Amino acid sequence: MIDFDRYTPLLQDGGRILLLVVDGLGGYPEADRGSELEDAHTPNLDALAARGITGLTEPAGPGITVGSGPGHLALFGYDPWRYDLGRGVLAAVGTGFPLQPGDVAARGNLAFLNDDSLVSDRRAGRISDDRAAPLTERVQQRLDADPPVAGVEVFLRHVSEHRVLLVLRGEGLDARLADMDPQDTGLAPLQARPLGSADARTASVVDAVDAAVRAALAEESDEASPDVALFRGFDGLREMPDFGERTGLRAAAIASYPMYRGVAQLVGMEVLHGPDGPPSSMADQIALARAARDTHDFLFVHYKYADAAGHDGNREAKVEALERLDVDLPALLEAADADVVVVSGDHASPAAVSGHSWHPVPTLLAGGSAGVDDVTTFGERACAGGLLGLRPTEHLLPLALGAAGRLAKYGA
Amino acid sequence: MIDFDRYTPLLQDGGRILLLVVDGLGGYPEADRGSELEDAHTPNLDALAARGITGLTEPAGPGITVGSGPGHLALFGYDPWRYDLGRGVLAAVGTGFPLQPGDVAARGNLAFLNDDSLVSDRRAGRISDDRAAPLTERVQQRLDADPPVAGVEVFLRHVSEHRVLLVLRGEGLDARLADMDPQDTGLAPLQARPLGSADARTASVVDAVDAAVRAALAEESDEASPDVALFRGFDGLREMPDFGERTGLRAAAIASYPMYRGVAQLVGMEVLHGPDGPPSSMADQIALARAARDTHDFLFVHYKYADAAGHDGNREAKVEALERLDVDLPALLEAADADVVVVSGDHASPAAVSGHSWHPVPTLLAGGSAGVDDVTTFGERACAGGLLGLRPTEHLLPLALGAAGRLAKYGA
Repeated sequence: MIDFDRYTPLLQDGGRILLLVVDGLGGYPEADRGSELEDAHTPNLDALAARGITGLTEPAGPGITVGSGPGHLALFGYDPWRYDLGRGVLAAVGTGFPLQPGDVAARGNLAFLNDDSLVSDRRAGRISDDRAAPLTERVQQRLDADPPVAGVEVFLRHVSEHRVLLVLRGEGLDARLADMDPQDTGLAPLQARPLGSADARTASVVDAVDAAVRAALAEESDEASPDVALFRGFDGLREMPDFGERTGLRAAAIASYPMYRGVAQLVGMEVLHGPDGPPSSMADQIALARAARDTHDFLFVHYKYADAAGHDGNREAKVEALERLDVDLPALLEAADADVVVVSGDHASPAAVSGHSWHPVPTLLAGGSAGVDDVTTFGERACAGGLLGLRPTEHLLPLALGAAGRLAKYGA
Repeated sequence: MIDFDRYTPLLQDGGRILLLVVDGLGGYPEADRGSELEDAHTPNLDALAARGITGLTEPAGPGITVGSGPGHLALFGYDPWRYDLGRGVLAAVGTGFPLQPGDVAARGNLAFLNDDSLVSDRRAGRISDDRAAPLTERVQQRLDADPPVAGVEVFLRHVSEHRVLLVLRGEGLDARLADMDPQDTGLAPLQARPLGSADARTASVVDAVDAAVRAALAEESDEASPDVALFRGFDGLREMPDFGERTGLRAAAIASYPMYRGVAQLVGMEVLHGPDGPPSSMADQIALARAARDTHDFLFVHYKYADAAGHDGNREAKVEALERLDVDLPALLEAADADVVVVSGDHASPAAVSGHSWHPVPTLLAGGSAGVDDVTTFGERACAGGLLGLRPTEHLLPLALGAAGRLAKYGA
C-alpha cells in the first residue's frame, strides 16, 4: 500500500502528467496467438513504449480480478482494499447520479414474485431497457406524488435491464443495512435489517420505501411488469482523501462514460465537459485535453472500447478498438502536451474470458526522467522484460510524480 | 503478505490444481556453468514451462534462506513470518509424531558433560543413528517404568544422529520456556525457566524430566554414551487457519517424507496413504494422485531428492534427481488430471553451498487462464524473463486460484 503521508511533504512543482486509461487493456497470450494488444497493429503505442519504460501492473493483488471501481482507484494511487466502494455508490456513480454525503444508495433488481410472494425471477425476465427505463420513471412519479416517509427524498433510477438504483436522502440516515435480495428464487424478499450497531430507524424507512415501490409497481397495467425491486449493497459516500491535496496536481477527468467520471469525481478531480456536455468521442476528449493545457497539470483520459469488446468475448473487436485508439494517440499526445505519459488499464479483459480477469496489465511510463528500456512494442510479453517491472497498480502515480520531477529528495 | 480475508469471500467453484513442490529446486548459475536445473536435461519441465508462464519466487523475503517449514507454508499461501513453526513442532512434524493441541515439544541434543558437569561436546561425538536410536528407546522405557512427574506423559524420540525430540503431554502445560541448551562447551546446561508471564509449573516439570533423562542415560553401561539431552525450541501447536476454509479447496498431500506430510497436516490438508502406508516412490505418488481425482481438487505432491543431493553438495546427483523427476512428470500430469499446474520449490538448495540458500526459486504456472510467455526452458535465467515476474512465494496460491477460475470479481 502506498502511504501518501510520505509523499505529500515531498511535493514540489514539476511537469504535467497524462494518464491514459485503456479500459480492459490487458489480456494473455496463448499457445497459438498473442493477446489482443500483442496482435493489434499499434505503431504509435509501440513508439511510445520505445521512448519510455514498460512493465506489468496488478490492481489489487495476485489472482484478483477487479471491477472498474477498484481498478481506477488503484490507478489514482488509492489502495483499492482500503477504499472499497460499495455496489450502491458505484451504481450511483455509474449512472451519473449526484450522490451527496449522508445519502444512502443501493442497487436493486426488478424481479417477479409468485403467488406466495416468493421470488420467481430475480431479473424480471431480463426486462429490456426500453421497458424498464419508462417503468422506473413512472414508479418515481408515483413515489413523488405520495412520498412514503416524511422528510426522506426517494430517488429510483434505471441503470440497465433489470438493474435500478435507489437513493434515500434525509437527516440521520445510516447506510449500514443488510441486503434485502435473498439472492435466489423460491425465497421471500428480506426485510430491511440494521447491521451491527447501525441505527434502526433507517431500516424502517427502507421497509416503507420498499412497500411504496411494490405498490407503485402494482399499478402497472402490464401483466408482465415486475412485482418488486430487491435491494442490496446499501452504502454511502465514504470519506476519501482528496487527489489534489495528496498529489499537488490540478487534476481533470476526460471520460465518455458516467462511471469513470464518477470515480474521478469521488476523489475530487474536476470532470471536464464540452459545450454539448460530456465528451462522446475521442475527438471530443482530445479537444478537452487541449483546452485543459493551461488549467490542469494532470489529465485522466479514459478509453472505453477495448473493455466493451472484451466483455463481449469479441477478440477481433478488441483488437480493432486498440487499433482505433492507436490511430488517435498522436493527436491526443499533441493536444495534452504532457511532460510525462502513463498508459495502463484498470484491469485485463481478455476476449477469451468474456469479462474482466486477474492478469497483470501492460503499462508504460514515458517522458520526464522516465528513461527508456529495450522494449519497443507494447504488449504483455514485451512489458515483462521492461524496467518498470511487475508492480501493484498503486505504484504508478508515485512513479509518474517522480518522473515529472514533482517529488523532492527524502532525507539529506 | 497475502490477506486471505480478501480472497475467501470471492471464492467460487473452478478447476483442479496440482502443486508440484520440487524440494530445493532452485540454485544459481555461475560464470562457467549453469544452475543444476539449467544444466539438467528436462524436456518435460521445459515443455510445461513453454505452455505456461514462468517467474521466480522468494519464500520469505530478499536474502532470507528458509527451512522446509516456512518454505512450504509460503507455498500453501501462509505468511511464513506470521505462522512461524518452532523447532519443537517441526521436529515432531518431521518425525511423524502425532502432536496434539496442548503438547509441549522441544528439540534436544544428546551431549557429553565433563567432570565438572559442564558441556564438553554438544553432539555427543556426533553419535551415529545406529547407536542413538536404540539408546533413545531404552531411555524411553526407563521413563515409562518410572514416570518422573505424575499426570505428565513424556515422549523421547530419536530424530537423527545426536538429535532427539521431547514431547510432554498433560493438563495445563505451557510451552513458553527458555532454551536449556547453553549453545557452547564449557558452560553448564541451564535450568528450565518460564518466559514472560508463562506458568512456572511447566518449568519444574521439565526440570524433573531433565533429571530423569540424565538418570536414565547414566544407566547405560557404555562409557561413551551421552550424559544429557540439551533441550531448546520449546513450542506447542499454534492455531493455523484451515487451508480448505481459506481456499475452498479439498486438498490432499502426497509426500514420501513425514516432514512434508506433517506440514500439510498442520494446515488441515488430508494426507494420502496407499494400501501399504505412505508413498515411498514417485510411482506410489502417481497412483495416489490418480486415486484422488474425484475426491480432491488440490493436490500437493512433494519430490524430495533434489534437495537431498543439494545438501550433500553433490551437483551431479542433484542434476540426476531433476532428470529423474522429469522422466516421471508426464505420468504425474496425466494421473493428476489438473486444470492448473504449479511447479516450484520450497527454497533453493545449490550443491555449491551444500544446503539451503536464499536464491529465488524458478516457478511455473500452466493451464486454466494462465496463458503463455516466451520462456521455453525451465531454469533460473529463463524464468527471470517470464510473465509471472519476481514474486513472494505466497502469491502462487492466489495466482493458481485465479488461473483456475476460482475467484469472483472484486468490486463493480
